[in-house]
Amino acid sequence: MDDSLLLPDVSDESFMRLALREARKALAAEEVPIGAVMVHDGKVISRAWNQVETLKDATAHAEMLCLTAAQSAVGDWRLDGCTLYVTKEPCPMCAGAIVHCRPSRVVFGCSDPKAGAAGGWINLLQSNPPLNHACEITSGILAEECLFMIQTFFREAREKKKENPRREYRFEEGE
Amino acid sequence: MDDSLLLPDVSDESFMRLALREARKALAAEEVPIGAVMVHDGKVISRAWNQVETLKDATAHAEMLCLTAAQSAVGDWRLDGCTLYVTKEPCPMCAGAIVHCRPSRVVFGCSDPKAGAAGGWINLLQSNPPLNHACEITSGILAEECLFMIQTFFREAREKKKENPRREYRFEEGE
Repeated sequence: MDDSLLLPDVSDESFMRLALREARKALAAEEVPIGAVMVHDGKVISRAWNQVETLKDATAHAEMLCLTAAQSAVGDWRLDGCTLYVTKEPCPMCAGAIVHCRPSRVVFGCSDPKAGAAGGWINLLQSNPPLNHACEITSGILAEECLFMIQTFFREAREKKKENPRREYRFEEGE
Repeated sequence: MDDSLLLPDVSDESFMRLALREARKALAAEEVPIGAVMVHDGKVISRAWNQVETLKDATAHAEMLCLTAAQSAVGDWRLDGCTLYVTKEPCPMCAGAIVHCRPSRVVFGCSDPKAGAAGGWINLLQSNPPLNHACEITSGILAEECLFMIQTFFREAREKKKENPRREYRFEEGE
């Protein structure tokens, strides 16, 4: 028997699948489907999905909630050695928060060339200096699945908007 | 009698004094002394002080807590028509969060030419586009008092650090 079958799958793809599972929770709640997990020593220490509408809080992006939960899990704001997996490139707020919390790596699915802050529009994760931390970045992990989920959401949202024109989503279409 | 004496003081200075009062609460808790208040129609709807160490959460800047509390107060993530007063120029995380929540104005005390994101280093509050909101900015309100409090904190922190070298603060000295 191949011993590798007994080992846990700690590949970037396997953790991005868990982030996608979080994104599906957002989708079920009619939120823009973005999910995140934080990993330390090959183990998930926090997971979260975008809850802007659910919490009526425009700062409740998946990354923010995942960072806060990870800090609770380790009992410290320093997330050295951790890797954040998120289905979409972080926005400036989330990238700024990531730098404050200092995970070692950020792995994301689809890019956001328009307003992303991990290289798409600007790169706050690797500005060091002036920001006092830099993260290793890996992009494009399961990018098509991550993007497809977001695109599908906005296509359906356009249809629903015909029924309820006042509904507005916190992410720009196409992000 | 001068009728103006009966009117509430809705000047930028008066609200910045309230933000400074919040900053003093941070100081009393041995946090970097930064405070914020959110104002709508001349009334304070939320107030907060930096609680990074207290909450063990590197994202718990005064602005973030003030935005979240303001959203709770109005029952919506949209803060149109609101003005955020904060004693120091917002960092990229906070500026990104402000843009998501859409207050109309941001008024700050001292600038952060090194890493500020309201014109000091970059300007995320007026990037529109690509970010989908822009705020009016007023800077320099009670700047000396705001800066003096932060500088005093760091001077005292240097002395305390001699006693406890492991203590580290989430803001860079001189910010």
